[in-house]
Amino acid sequence: MTALLLIDVRVLGGAPTDLLLLDGRIAAAGTPAPPGTAVLDGAGRLAMPGLVEAHTHLDKSLLGMAWYRNEVGPRLIDKIDNERAARRALPIPPERQSARQVALSVGHGSTHIRSHVDVDTECGLSGIAGVLATKQAARDSCTIQIVAFPQSGLLARPGTLELMDQAMAMGADVVGGLDPCAIDRDPKGHLDAVFALADKHGAPVDIHLHEPGEMGAFSMELIVERTRALGMRGRVMVSHAFCLGSPDAALVDPLLAALAEAGIAIMTTGAPSRPVPPVKRLAAAGVVCCAGSDGIRDTWGPYGNADMLERATLVGLRNNLRRDDELALALEIVTTGGARAIGLKEYGLAPGCPADIVLVVAETVAEAVAQHPGARTTIKAGRVVAEAGRAH
Amino acid sequence: MTALLLIDVRVLGGAPTDLLLLDGRIAAAGTPAPPGTAVLDGAGRLAMPGLVEAHTHLDKSLLGMAWYRNEVGPRLIDKIDNERAARRALPIPPERQSARQVALSVGHGSTHIRSHVDVDTECGLSGIAGVLATKQAARDSCTIQIVAFPQSGLLARPGTLELMDQAMAMGADVVGGLDPCAIDRDPKGHLDAVFALADKHGAPVDIHLHEPGEMGAFSMELIVERTRALGMRGRVMVSHAFCLGSPDAALVDPLLAALAEAGIAIMTTGAPSRPVPPVKRLAAAGVVCCAGSDGIRDTWGPYGNADMLERATLVGLRNNLRRDDELALALEIVTTGGARAIGLKEYGLAPGCPADIVLVVAETVAEAVAQHPGARTTIKAGRVVAEAGRAH
Repeated sequence: MTALLLIDVRVLGGAPTDLLLLDGRIAAAGTPAPPGTAVLDGAGRLAMPGLVEAHTHLDKSLLGMAWYRNEVGPRLIDKIDNERAARRALPIPPERQSARQVALSVGHGSTHIRSHVDVDTECGLSGIAGVLATKQAARDSCTIQIVAFPQSGLLARPGTLELMDQAMAMGADVVGGLDPCAIDRDPKGHLDAVFALADKHGAPVDIHLHEPGEMGAFSMELIVERTRALGMRGRVMVSHAFCLGSPDAALVDPLLAALAEAGIAIMTTGAPSRPVPPVKRLAAAGVVCCAGSDGIRDTWGPYGNADMLERATLVGLRNNLRRDDELALALEIVTTGGARAIGLKEYGLAPGCPADIVLVVAETVAEAVAQHPGARTTIKAGRVVAEAGRAH
Repeated sequence: MTALLLIDVRVLGGAPTDLLLLDGRIAAAGTPAPPGTAVLDGAGRLAMPGLVEAHTHLDKSLLGMAWYRNEVGPRLIDKIDNERAARRALPIPPERQSARQVALSVGHGSTHIRSHVDVDTECGLSGIAGVLATKQAARDSCTIQIVAFPQSGLLARPGTLELMDQAMAMGADVVGGLDPCAIDRDPKGHLDAVFALADKHGAPVDIHLHEPGEMGAFSMELIVERTRALGMRGRVMVSHAFCLGSPDAALVDPLLAALAEAGIAIMTTGAPSRPVPPVKRLAAAGVVCCAGSDGIRDTWGPYGNADMLERATLVGLRNNLRRDDELALALEIVTTGGARAIGLKEYGLAPGCPADIVLVVAETVAEAVAQHPGARTTIKAGRVVAEAGRAH
């Protein structure tokens, strides 16, 4: 039996209190601490549930490697092609690189990560194998979900679908997809294949949808239809969903209603240079919303640090969230929204929940979101796994 | 005579070298260090010129005060009215608050700040007096320019123009203006008054222009006309300039050409939730571009930390800058672009320039911009004024 007593913490900015963590869970209020229980003095810090990184690419970060000089062209396909070439030339070992990024995430307070991992006819299943190894090695500090992700196209590159099937058999958790119109050029074929694979493996679905405007709305309709037909409420996510950032309410409002009704979650990075899903309207429509870092310092771009509280800042800035009640929505997106979106059964700071907790020097939730203070303490299943912003 | 020898620094990411700083200036290569010269080991850090904070509001940050619960309405005028009320209720002492923000800026590597300071019929000249005191007190660590800023309107609030005139007489450096159509409701009257005051005091002009689309373009045309008429090339800035973020090239392209021809600089914060000046197109058109934090943790919004390298990150993200050559533009905006925009006569890392330097742990300029590493050393006029990210 493990036991840890957190004293003088303020749950989501409330009054100072103590939290007893027993056997990896939050104990009921008033439960006496067993003799010899270790004590961690929160020193008045704000306690929030472990942050949820709902969308990243653990297999291809260049963290800790020499600076990669980016001279890539402007189109999506330029970046996809360039990455395959870089993976051969550098190379980018998935196990080592994913371990580096997970450590960074844990240091910033993430206790759950959903990572897309490339599957294609060049890299094969090496990314899946590498991130599976990291998932196992890091299991005590972070829970990792793996999405088998056909980054270079699914039907457009024959052999990929079979590799995706093998990835799921190896232990990937989620079936991924990518721009059914713009990249794979066969929306019906692409989505039928993705959902059939998910059905075969009893797995959720998570689809990158960069397609803007009417094209993206069309693909989203096809996703909604398949989600309904297979009864996959709560098990489908659309990542990026730039089409929801269209200024055309006649396009967006029916999509939001359909997403809410079908129980499909939306992931946003708060991308400042693209139209993005309007998080306040999503919340009002009842659509579950989560957030992610996307790629971190990779061949696509040089940005990112795996800090989901800083991601909440970016989502807040992108959506012009200024009021304290609006900033609470930004925190929800990187905590409870993320947990619902990636299908966690138990999550939060209520008694009985897994003791996944972050301590932050902040007076209020709004301050935590707007200023993303550093030097956090991360607790996973009742054990301290990072202090002063650094993973153990 | 002061002397400091920086050893093992990499100027903008170049090969390791030494820099001798003599009497507050960068000495010519090969100049022997005088006996007893202090040595600072750069340990391979990247050296860049002191960062330029070209637009902030030193008089009204709430830094170090209890968290301000924001419940403000969505319109610009809501924020303006709320701020006047908060200034009475809290209060917000300009001298103390400006000193706090300047220390934060210096810690992050800013050696020059242009601050707008409110002048209105309620607060009078108290903001100007407070920031003038900080300007004097902080003169050895940071050079501060003060813009007399009619935040609550100029002609719309009788008595403000006379206060602005007094502010300039007291020592304000620049005449400010604000949304000639949308706030003051009299674009000709507003701009004639602003430029007449500038002409009287021989001062530059810096105008907040939030007005979008065609309205903003109209105001900008009026600013261009007055800049030409008064021969104020290089002495006029338009801050925010959201109208330049219009997707209508037929609106924007002639404005860019006119701005370049008239020598008017543009300030952007890289605001993620508003249309913003497209910095690559500005650079291509020959328009000087700079950046600023705008308000930091004030009654307008909870964001901001006075880090101009993080601002470069935000400008980069907002403008989708990914390639190393594009990130170099982002650095230029917070260094040389800022220096030109606020009218510094001498600036940079060439021999003879004032020794205003920041040292950053980064392999390349692109890394410095994309990752804005912390723990910097700031040097002002040849003296170390901040170490490990903290002002002395």
